[in-house]
Amino acid sequence: MSPADLRERVDKALHEFLQRAVAPLAGLSPDLAPFGVVTETFVLDGGKRLRPAFCYWGHRAAGGDDSDALIRAAASLELLQACALVHDDVIDSSDTRRGAPSVHRRFAAIHRSEGWHGDPEAFGSASAILLGDLALIWADTMLAESGLGVDALQRAFGVWDAMRVEVMCGQYLDVVEQARGGGSVERALRVARFKSAKYTVERPLHLGAALAGAGGDMLSALSAFGLPIGEAFQLRDDLLGVYGDPAETGKPAGDDLREGKRTVLVAFALEGANDTQRETLRRLLGDPALGEDGVTILREVIDATGARDRVEGLIDERYEQAQRALESPLLDSTAADALRVLAAAATRRAH
Amino acid sequence: MSPADLRERVDKALHEFLQRAVAPLAGLSPDLAPFGVVTETFVLDGGKRLRPAFCYWGHRAAGGDDSDALIRAAASLELLQACALVHDDVIDSSDTRRGAPSVHRRFAAIHRSEGWHGDPEAFGSASAILLGDLALIWADTMLAESGLGVDALQRAFGVWDAMRVEVMCGQYLDVVEQARGGGSVERALRVARFKSAKYTVERPLHLGAALAGAGGDMLSALSAFGLPIGEAFQLRDDLLGVYGDPAETGKPAGDDLREGKRTVLVAFALEGANDTQRETLRRLLGDPALGEDGVTILREVIDATGARDRVEGLIDERYEQAQRALESPLLDSTAADALRVLAAAATRRAH
Repeated sequence: MSPADLRERVDKALHEFLQRAVAPLAGLSPDLAPFGVVTETFVLDGGKRLRPAFCYWGHRAAGGDDSDALIRAAASLELLQACALVHDDVIDSSDTRRGAPSVHRRFAAIHRSEGWHGDPEAFGSASAILLGDLALIWADTMLAESGLGVDALQRAFGVWDAMRVEVMCGQYLDVVEQARGGGSVERALRVARFKSAKYTVERPLHLGAALAGAGGDMLSALSAFGLPIGEAFQLRDDLLGVYGDPAETGKPAGDDLREGKRTVLVAFALEGANDTQRETLRRLLGDPALGEDGVTILREVIDATGARDRVEGLIDERYEQAQRALESPLLDSTAADALRVLAAAATRRAH
Repeated sequence: MSPADLRERVDKALHEFLQRAVAPLAGLSPDLAPFGVVTETFVLDGGKRLRPAFCYWGHRAAGGDDSDALIRAAASLELLQACALVHDDVIDSSDTRRGAPSVHRRFAAIHRSEGWHGDPEAFGSASAILLGDLALIWADTMLAESGLGVDALQRAFGVWDAMRVEVMCGQYLDVVEQARGGGSVERALRVARFKSAKYTVERPLHLGAALAGAGGDMLSALSAFGLPIGEAFQLRDDLLGVYGDPAETGKPAGDDLREGKRTVLVAFALEGANDTQRETLRRLLGDPALGEDGVTILREVIDATGARDRVEGLIDERYEQAQRALESPLLDSTAADALRVLAAAATRRAH
């Protein structure tokens, strides 16, 4: 099955689930209508569906069969991700997500257009916190009602549970890392490992495999692929956050610089900088008013410290390691081929 | 079993679960330690354990047996409630909860004492959003790992799921109601019905009963008791929010007035006010700087409009209705007696 076909099936499953999940809200109160509309728009209008893809192919790699129930179970990861993103945007006060206004901005706009009392921004944040909670609950419902058997769900519960805890802990570590402003390479890599390697790739692979009844050897074989490719994926994302094209990333150019994200890239830059460069980095990184010129200066300084090349080097190493792991005889060969394609797509250089 | 014994068992179950749930966090990063400490302190240092009690007695009312597994399942409702409260305090920017600093204030204090970069308040809110998410996830884990059989859990999943959705929707309707500032009695009653009648009483009763395999008649019999007593409970809470003793409520005197909560009490006051009184209400309600004098004035005005008496009248009606419902021959008589005691405690007049 091609990535595009898989994506289409995942989107269809999400659409069908949300239609069903949102329906009872109308019976509670017409005021709840925006919850349904905003959730559905947010979930369906973007995202690369990487987590469902890794879950699906983890299942197939472990010898599990294709089924619509599997697609629904895999798609539930997008609702967990919706919670993480919506709450993350509140936490970072991000105005945009996937090229459109973030959820709290959408609710602030509703507040304004209704001419309600109080602060539209506060209303927006409150609504986004609650919508994120709802998405977290719906993720659970979608998995439980996927149509996979009770035994399969029981087997997968430990992975599902660990993954949900890890994503929230990863977000918190990220927030602490920003607050600490330390910029240590080691800590930045640890955040990357949680937020991305485990949560985006390894856990979804394990979830799919556990649903197929996989044992420890299979899970290890999938980790040997998933952890390096997940780190590579996060490192690519860090580069895109600084050097990426807004049309591709859906975020304004240099947004990560304006937020002062303590990525591995930034940690390398601080480590490799001379005094003048370090001064520039300290002065401009995290400046919320950073303009186009500031972004250009920071890009050049980071490049000049050698940080960009070092990150590309780490990506290459991890990509190679992941490719070798796919040669494991334990993995179904169709699935290994599909994972190879996914790995390349998720870590390829920006154009 | 006495309310105190039940409470002790619920607290013990929560303590044991949280010890187990928090343990893996230390392996992820020592920075996660505050999550464990703050969650445990918050969950164990307060709360009336009403929801676990209704769940427990709903189970017994439907003929289910006492067991430690049941206690664990019932106690999981406190983690769901922890999520709701922690997020609610972020939404309302409340400084205190249960007589102690709210969770976001505790994390802001950590930020300050560590001397971290950025805004301590923003760090506090971010951490509280994520801690609330974690509590929502752990609620689920605690129920799933309660030790009740898969069949019982399957039977109860629909109720569990509906309850979680309703609490978030109820919170949102509350936020919308504040923003609208309308003060309609009908809408305020609808919020009370969701936030309290269904979520605090009816759903916990149903959850316990569903875990015991109850059918539609039993659920209806429990609703006939739970809905009126839940509304009475919320109405009592509204009165306590205005007239209650801070030592009893754990919140500063008149906190609801300062927040401008659009309760049934306030809606009645606006409805019954003459022009002068309405002017005073509009001017002082929701004033964040409202001092002791302002609180006293508002209390007197609300009383003078007859709103306080009308709310007491509604409580009495609902209390009587709930007592009559407990005479249903379907309900186990020991459980009916225990529910009678709970109902009286949850709706009794402030001292």
